[in-house]
Amino acid sequence: MTGPAELPAELADVVARIAPPDQAARNAALERQTRLTKPTGALGRLEDLSVWASGVQGQCPPHLFQRVRVVVIAADHGIAQSGVSAYPAEVTAQMVGNFLAGGAAVNVLARQGGATVRVIDVGVSVDVDGAESGFKVCHGSRPIDTEDALDADQLTAALRAGVAIVDGEVDNGADLLILGDMGIGSTTPCAAVTAALLDLSPDVTTGRGTGVDDETLARKRAAVAAAVARMDGSTDPLHLVGAIGGADLATMAAMLLTAAARRTPVVLDGVVSCTAALVAARVAPAALDWWVAGHRSSEPAQRAVLDALGLAPVVDLELRLGEGTGALVALPILQMAIATLAEMATFDEAGVSDRDG
Amino acid sequence: MTGPAELPAELADVVARIAPPDQAARNAALERQTRLTKPTGALGRLEDLSVWASGVQGQCPPHLFQRVRVVVIAADHGIAQSGVSAYPAEVTAQMVGNFLAGGAAVNVLARQGGATVRVIDVGVSVDVDGAESGFKVCHGSRPIDTEDALDADQLTAALRAGVAIVDGEVDNGADLLILGDMGIGSTTPCAAVTAALLDLSPDVTTGRGTGVDDETLARKRAAVAAAVARMDGSTDPLHLVGAIGGADLATMAAMLLTAAARRTPVVLDGVVSCTAALVAARVAPAALDWWVAGHRSSEPAQRAVLDALGLAPVVDLELRLGEGTGALVALPILQMAIATLAEMATFDEAGVSDRDG
Repeated sequence: MTGPAELPAELADVVARIAPPDQAARNAALERQTRLTKPTGALGRLEDLSVWASGVQGQCPPHLFQRVRVVVIAADHGIAQSGVSAYPAEVTAQMVGNFLAGGAAVNVLARQGGATVRVIDVGVSVDVDGAESGFKVCHGSRPIDTEDALDADQLTAALRAGVAIVDGEVDNGADLLILGDMGIGSTTPCAAVTAALLDLSPDVTTGRGTGVDDETLARKRAAVAAAVARMDGSTDPLHLVGAIGGADLATMAAMLLTAAARRTPVVLDGVVSCTAALVAARVAPAALDWWVAGHRSSEPAQRAVLDALGLAPVVDLELRLGEGTGALVALPILQMAIATLAEMATFDEAGVSDRDG
Repeated sequence: MTGPAELPAELADVVARIAPPDQAARNAALERQTRLTKPTGALGRLEDLSVWASGVQGQCPPHLFQRVRVVVIAADHGIAQSGVSAYPAEVTAQMVGNFLAGGAAVNVLARQGGATVRVIDVGVSVDVDGAESGFKVCHGSRPIDTEDALDADQLTAALRAGVAIVDGEVDNGADLLILGDMGIGSTTPCAAVTAALLDLSPDVTTGRGTGVDDETLARKRAAVAAAVARMDGSTDPLHLVGAIGGADLATMAAMLLTAAARRTPVVLDGVVSCTAALVAARVAPAALDWWVAGHRSSEPAQRAVLDALGLAPVVDLELRLGEGTGALVALPILQMAIATLAEMATFDEAGVSDRDG
């Protein structure tokens, strides 16, 4: 896998279909904001979010999102065997069980926010009882410091999985997607992919993940540096996601592209979701308009991606959990933004004097 | 009104009853956070909020707040006649009508967040049909650049109103309060009171409020400077709130003290709510532990108060509307924080290996 990775036919078709959100609906939202009973701009970022929602829904006023789906993509990473995480690798499978039982943070926040959770194993080392495994492409990726994470067939399978998963969700009525993640060691390939794509030092993109100590952080940085060095300066996004990423990142990148093609908005989450977004944006920059950044994470690679893509996060609450939790915290604020644009009275309706009145 | 303002008997009694939140419940929350299925600290500020909720509720795990009341305090300010706002003064009464009809931002956000709204006229220039006026202490305050906003009787009446309003709300079952505000010109007394109490330049504390132009901002700064100069360096909080504040700020300061005495938590909102909090904290510093800062506003006096009181806001979305809107945007995040502590599985329950496992 030395040259640019080729798009599988399904994904090439997806990319060709990506078009911008509805500009007329955006303009109508901007105009309506000036007539609501408040000083123009006084709702700050809520106004921006309401305009974005109008554009991606193609209507003004927008409606509250009705079927919000969190899709958690689980995979193991070979590099986790090199001591880069504070947790043993078997926690990936254990946490998949916790998701299925409804006991994880993502389950609690989804219930509270009115969303539902689907968990898909695309690359966990073992098979978890009751977990959805029809899209599984590997039992753990290979260690990225010395080998390519996925071979060409596995990469193609992961990209195809992403297309099929989102096609299925949209066909079933999902009107907003959140991409969650679970995989011990996953912040290491994120640090590697973002370092390579953004031409940043591995020391800058590598963070403490679940909370590693200094010694583990040094091992993690060395692994990221070795992975990036193997790429010989390549900036081909799909080559990188297969070689120094993993099954989760490849699947999620294809999911983000497919969501844009299907005109279905996405709230981005933490470092895994955002690294996949960086890969997807390098494949098709137009997809970016379909995403909003839910939160700013503590993980440096996530912050670097937000900066590089020009995405302003809705909240900054020092979360560093993944699973979709940061996006879920932003969800009620997005719904509130929509509600203000849809439900507030205008100056005329309320008989309130505007600033010129 | 030259010496320190005396506390009315009701308020003196309130202040004497303020005690800290439940430390045992806080400790139990801190301990439970370490056993939930996530790395310790990975939920960031949500963990802090869950600990605060446990303390103010006196139980761990805490329950979701069930009866959240937004109490909007409306009053006019004489200084508004001096051209310090982008809007004409009659908008205060018009917006009270809009609140009663359910068309304002506070109504929409409260519905979305599961809260209810009560509007109380403590000092609007005219009487608004259908508005609650039993606590009314004046028809507009006097212009603070040349006169005291309230006389001694009006100040006492406003403080007593604050005690009675919160006593009534808590007796009726409110378990979380948000103090909203409505009053054209209200950011001007806020800038004056915060400048005097924090020993800051009026130029630092005076902002653009509803969005005034440079000429209006210069007039507003001059009015604030004149008001502060009249105080001869006084830092007596109740003297200042009567002399260069207004009926809304005095009522809200007493409400915040009463909430603390009644062991009922408050989410602070924007510059009016936070200026009242500064006044209340100067009367009784122990009250501070009963409040959480909902948001960081665009208004500089609000930011100065948050810094002075050491309050970290939940969100920073460039809101500058007041009414309680910034606190309401933070409400679902507070509820999510509670839900994670109350509903997530522990490592033992889920059979997930902890970092030592």
